[in-house]
Amino acid sequence: MTTKQLYEQIQQKKSFLCIGLDVDLTKIPHHLLATDDPIFEFNKAIIDATHDLCVSYKPNTAFYEAYGLKGWQSLEKTINYINENYPDIFTIADAKRGDIGNTSTMYAKAFLEDLNFDSVTVAPYMGKDSVEPFLAFENKHTILLALTSNEGAFDFQTKEINEKPLYQTILETSKNYKNSQNLMYVVGATKADYFKEIRAIVPDAFLLVPGVGAQGGSLVDVCKFGMNKQVGLLINSSRGIIYASNQQDFAEAARTEALKLQKAMEIILEQN
Amino acid sequence: MTTKQLYEQIQQKKSFLCIGLDVDLTKIPHHLLATDDPIFEFNKAIIDATHDLCVSYKPNTAFYEAYGLKGWQSLEKTINYINENYPDIFTIADAKRGDIGNTSTMYAKAFLEDLNFDSVTVAPYMGKDSVEPFLAFENKHTILLALTSNEGAFDFQTKEINEKPLYQTILETSKNYKNSQNLMYVVGATKADYFKEIRAIVPDAFLLVPGVGAQGGSLVDVCKFGMNKQVGLLINSSRGIIYASNQQDFAEAARTEALKLQKAMEIILEQN
Repeated sequence: MTTKQLYEQIQQKKSFLCIGLDVDLTKIPHHLLATDDPIFEFNKAIIDATHDLCVSYKPNTAFYEAYGLKGWQSLEKTINYINENYPDIFTIADAKRGDIGNTSTMYAKAFLEDLNFDSVTVAPYMGKDSVEPFLAFENKHTILLALTSNEGAFDFQTKEINEKPLYQTILETSKNYKNSQNLMYVVGATKADYFKEIRAIVPDAFLLVPGVGAQGGSLVDVCKFGMNKQVGLLINSSRGIIYASNQQDFAEAARTEALKLQKAMEIILEQN
Repeated sequence: MTTKQLYEQIQQKKSFLCIGLDVDLTKIPHHLLATDDPIFEFNKAIIDATHDLCVSYKPNTAFYEAYGLKGWQSLEKTINYINENYPDIFTIADAKRGDIGNTSTMYAKAFLEDLNFDSVTVAPYMGKDSVEPFLAFENKHTILLALTSNEGAFDFQTKEINEKPLYQTILETSKNYKNSQNLMYVVGATKADYFKEIRAIVPDAFLLVPGVGAQGGSLVDVCKFGMNKQVGLLINSSRGIIYASNQQDFAEAARTEALKLQKAMEIILEQN
């Protein structure tokens, strides 16, 4: 998918919502546990109930790997289900991978080619030759961790190198990587004013923003500083939507929560 | 496994060799491709031929994920084979994971509990709460990326924060993490004199050292600066051993290469 297609979808749906599919068997409705593949059945119901309100789904691979072979199978079925039924959706493998060149190539192949995700999240620590193998895939996107929304982000990401926080150094350095037009960035929403400085460095890139809702960021503030001409934001919500209810009505309840965010986004889009 | 047990194994085998199981179907002997599970058959033969010469095996998860469900199955069979037949071996899931707390817990569970690896490699970028969930597992080890052996290591890892390279800041900060006694570190062997400064910060930790051989580091130099009283080094070789031959004699050829490294290590151990 191109970013132009993603932008068109945002305009059409009046939404830049990404729903995180972080499925924990201890949190899903009890009646699903009797099915052959509870994770997939849960995802399928959530996707069918919300696909017109969001532009992106983001399965976090950890939650699938934790269930071994069966989990990996659920992940495959989930991405195939989205690609077959809702091909306009922008899919993100939230895998936070990154390794030396030949290894990153294997990861890129796994997520962007075999599983056919539109994008994958990548950790920047190993630098250029760990990121470029992902960038080599045409019309696919590499979402580099810049500033994350967790407490540990302040351990290293905000530490200064030549009077500039590490995450800004990463943003700047990555712009010189080969095929950097395929880069997007993870930027946590814990402090909205960070977005001003980030937009000065990467005015055009899409930013994947976790931490709105459960982790405390404000949608309005993030949009005020983070939005660009093509919107340029994917706001992720996981637990607040998918675990809105753990009863029979879970998919309906997820739709209700997704609708609230979509409506808030619609208002913001109209004002911009 | 405790580090004491690892040290005992090193003394007994006169080796601190780790063999990387980075299995690429395009590089393994052609005759194996006709078998039901070529990756596992390859690993099994390599393991049977080398287990008395090394103290550790390190499958790189990327090479398994790249083959989807079938690859994940090969990984499961490989770790189970090692644990059942050679329980004294220290196993490393080279996964380079790391995510916010609840997600890291899922990864830790996947590798340290379900697959029952002794250790897993973790990327430090997201800080404390992304690393501590791994450290919580008793007698399991978290091998944190400090200084890697690739070119991109110089993008960020060696950049200075308060006149100290980022990788040193990471070493120092991580010592304050909860259960930091379960930490080991990845330190690439591209420049042996880095080891002097690293040992000043983490005198007792085991260091996993890639980059000896194919990537250019020298075994003698690394040992000169990196060894501690409990040896404290796991020297990894992947391609140089497992792809020594791609003919029928591949396992024998792998043994020959592993033996060369083990002999070199035996001499170094005798001199120390």
